[in-house]
Amino acid sequence: MTAYDRLSARFARIATVHEAAAMLNWDAAAMMPPGGAAARGDQLAVLAGHAHALLTAPEVAGDLAAATEADAWREANLRLMRHAHLRASAVPADLVEAQARANAACETIWRGARRDADFARVAPALAEVLNLARQQAAALSAALHLSPYDALMDGYQRGIGAADVAPVFTAYARFLHDALPRAEELQASRPPPLRPEGPFPADRQEALCRRLSEAAGLEAEHSRLDRSAHPFCGGTPSDVRITTRYDETDFARALLGVLHETGHALYERGLPAAFARQPVGEAAGMAAHESQSLIIEMQACRSDAYLGWLGPQLHAAFGGAAAAFAPANLGRLWRRVERGHIRVDADEMTYPAHVILRFRLEQALVVGELAAADLPGAWAEGMRDLLGIVPPDDAQGCMQDIHWYDGAIGYFPSYTLGAMAAAQLMAAARRDVPGLDAAIGRGDLSPLVGWLRLHVHAKGSLLGFNDLLRAATGRPLDPADFEAHLTARYLA
Amino acid sequence: MTAYDRLSARFARIATVHEAAAMLNWDAAAMMPPGGAAARGDQLAVLAGHAHALLTAPEVAGDLAAATEADAWREANLRLMRHAHLRASAVPADLVEAQARANAACETIWRGARRDADFARVAPALAEVLNLARQQAAALSAALHLSPYDALMDGYQRGIGAADVAPVFTAYARFLHDALPRAEELQASRPPPLRPEGPFPADRQEALCRRLSEAAGLEAEHSRLDRSAHPFCGGTPSDVRITTRYDETDFARALLGVLHETGHALYERGLPAAFARQPVGEAAGMAAHESQSLIIEMQACRSDAYLGWLGPQLHAAFGGAAAAFAPANLGRLWRRVERGHIRVDADEMTYPAHVILRFRLEQALVVGELAAADLPGAWAEGMRDLLGIVPPDDAQGCMQDIHWYDGAIGYFPSYTLGAMAAAQLMAAARRDVPGLDAAIGRGDLSPLVGWLRLHVHAKGSLLGFNDLLRAATGRPLDPADFEAHLTARYLA
Repeated sequence: MTAYDRLSARFARIATVHEAAAMLNWDAAAMMPPGGAAARGDQLAVLAGHAHALLTAPEVAGDLAAATEADAWREANLRLMRHAHLRASAVPADLVEAQARANAACETIWRGARRDADFARVAPALAEVLNLARQQAAALSAALHLSPYDALMDGYQRGIGAADVAPVFTAYARFLHDALPRAEELQASRPPPLRPEGPFPADRQEALCRRLSEAAGLEAEHSRLDRSAHPFCGGTPSDVRITTRYDETDFARALLGVLHETGHALYERGLPAAFARQPVGEAAGMAAHESQSLIIEMQACRSDAYLGWLGPQLHAAFGGAAAAFAPANLGRLWRRVERGHIRVDADEMTYPAHVILRFRLEQALVVGELAAADLPGAWAEGMRDLLGIVPPDDAQGCMQDIHWYDGAIGYFPSYTLGAMAAAQLMAAARRDVPGLDAAIGRGDLSPLVGWLRLHVHAKGSLLGFNDLLRAATGRPLDPADFEAHLTARYLA
Repeated sequence: MTAYDRLSARFARIATVHEAAAMLNWDAAAMMPPGGAAARGDQLAVLAGHAHALLTAPEVAGDLAAATEADAWREANLRLMRHAHLRASAVPADLVEAQARANAACETIWRGARRDADFARVAPALAEVLNLARQQAAALSAALHLSPYDALMDGYQRGIGAADVAPVFTAYARFLHDALPRAEELQASRPPPLRPEGPFPADRQEALCRRLSEAAGLEAEHSRLDRSAHPFCGGTPSDVRITTRYDETDFARALLGVLHETGHALYERGLPAAFARQPVGEAAGMAAHESQSLIIEMQACRSDAYLGWLGPQLHAAFGGAAAAFAPANLGRLWRRVERGHIRVDADEMTYPAHVILRFRLEQALVVGELAAADLPGAWAEGMRDLLGIVPPDDAQGCMQDIHWYDGAIGYFPSYTLGAMAAAQLMAAARRDVPGLDAAIGRGDLSPLVGWLRLHVHAKGSLLGFNDLLRAATGRPLDPADFEAHLTARYLA
């Protein structure tokens, strides 16, 4: 057995432990009775500890030093193994434990403080989370030869750093400053959309969501659709679990949410089977993942072509006045711009502003230029600058997202990198595949999904984010296609 | 840290890995899409391997030799740790692997062969399973100082062996020889029961099952009820998962099945929290577990008292003609004796005959007195002797149960030991708790469950099977109470 083969077997084992944990996480969100929570926490901790021990065992370093591979995939796999080993070994065990404790404690305080819009209550715990995150960033920075912030970002999306992101975000902020008022003006000049009249029984919504998800290419043989408080896509590539929640007064949230999660699920289903359970066989990162959910939800399924097909389906499923299901009305209803305070409710044009704000603030927090206690003021200032609004309280401002309070720093850019990449990939797919939009207009996403499988899914982690885009579209990340998409959809 | 504390932490970790596996097994039966099966097998194998490695790690033997504890619970815990370590270390790793492969292969062949009632097709694979089981039994026998068959039985129910079981079963066979024709005669002299007229929608059955299970004491906070092809009780003590399947033409199977599984679940819920995840905090074995399901299903919920309360509940839930829901009719319907070929369909009087047959045959198979190829003939002879019937084919004979074909030998006696223990425990509870049956007649099982919690559940594995019965009822296993119960129910 070669050093590479030993490593390959070890990483397959690690991935299998992660699969078990993924299923238990899904169960905790979708199935578990509340009384099971404490035991579940222990189960996940034991699995995480086992996976970490396998990754950092004494014999791994020697095999990593000895192994050489000529084949591009195996060479990339080895590089990713080294990278994973480096990340896992760089942070001292006592810091990992201190972070787990501090993050969990802060998240608990945050839940109550957010409910009461009382930032002062959670500020000390957040300061401690940030203090430890800075230590983590410093340790990773030394090991990976990246800046501290880039070292954190690397944990969510390899192959792109703040220096790549900052100019793209600055350019977008400029675009938005001009485009948003024009879009609002145009929107105000058109008739307001009609809302389909409910109630929409959850079971009927669920059956429809299941049908649309299958029609988009997700096989029932390898997936489930269930309910959870916070929609997500989990599970494993051969057994993907997506969740949503149903509002009986408005079916749009679940329906568009399920199409979004279906995009994530299709990515997992299309990963290269020959490298299953190997680092190079995994999805290329969170921004790449978000590009796959958004290309299905935003690019394909909110397009005029798809709505033209979807409207009659919806009318048949729910009944009521036909006018509300007219494709043009659905477009006006589901493609509205609005300056709001809440990121997760934002439309696709203003969403990046929420991300740009967080990207700027979290960099300042990591380098220590901004103290946790000064976050509310900096937040208000940033929102005024980007969207011209100021949150009425901190619950609708700097306390709205769990991420920082749970120690996740460097994650936010992925959302907007994904949105931009989705537009860039869609433009490339349109160039490559004749009749792409005509197929979408028949509810047939298979030409698009086939193209994505070839150019994104089947590549696994062979390429970093920018190289993946370059191979698929001819260019690294470039906001031009995203801006062109928004211009066509909101300013025409 | 003392040797005992180190061991206690290690066994807690092992139990936590087993909890994760229990959840994944439940998911595989109740939730998993078919495409997830291969990956799930790998996940369970990795968890089993990790638990085994923790149990047989080099440092364990030293700690087991060094640890001493005076307290009865901790002393028993240590004894059970030694026992588990001995069992895990006794069987060579290559034999464990060979058994896993042979059992899986034989089970697959058995599924097809049973469908076609073609015993010859599976006989060679069964011979190999038995050959390996004999080697396993020999290895365990040497380590545990038990006979080979008792060493296998010990894996399912500690504290009782063939020498305890054989006379009890022989006595029962004598009782049955006389009692069964009398019960049949009496039954024939009474009016045939009316069948409630369906259909009974699965959702309504499920809601009722959930309500009755909760009424029996199973908390929704700590349990789930779902659907699977083969009903079972799984999960963990703080998060018990029971399953059933619904037949829309007959609600009785799901309803009585859920009450049965509720008995198992209540046992898990009542285990001693102070010894959670320790060997002494586990259930006392499969026979003890079956006693808890059968005392709820057979002793309590098929009693006249409970049916008197249940009948009107059922009528309210399902509607239709009231006569079919009359308690006396439900009694005639759900307490019928019948000489049948299929164990899982058997009534409580003839069920032990099915077990006695298997107990006799599997002993002969283990010692090598009976060859796999001769099983059909021995089966027919045994059935003629015990129940006076001969199966029309092997699918309804020696191929009906998965157990042997999956390598589970020594398990069958647990069913009947459980049935007898249930009657013995019920008789003791009636002596100890005034008004027990009156409470059951109000649908209130809490006095019974409270008594069981004290005398069975909270004891965990402190005592072996016979010692547990002695402490709870004053006597070791004794079929007299079971025979008295059957006499009162079927011969009065």
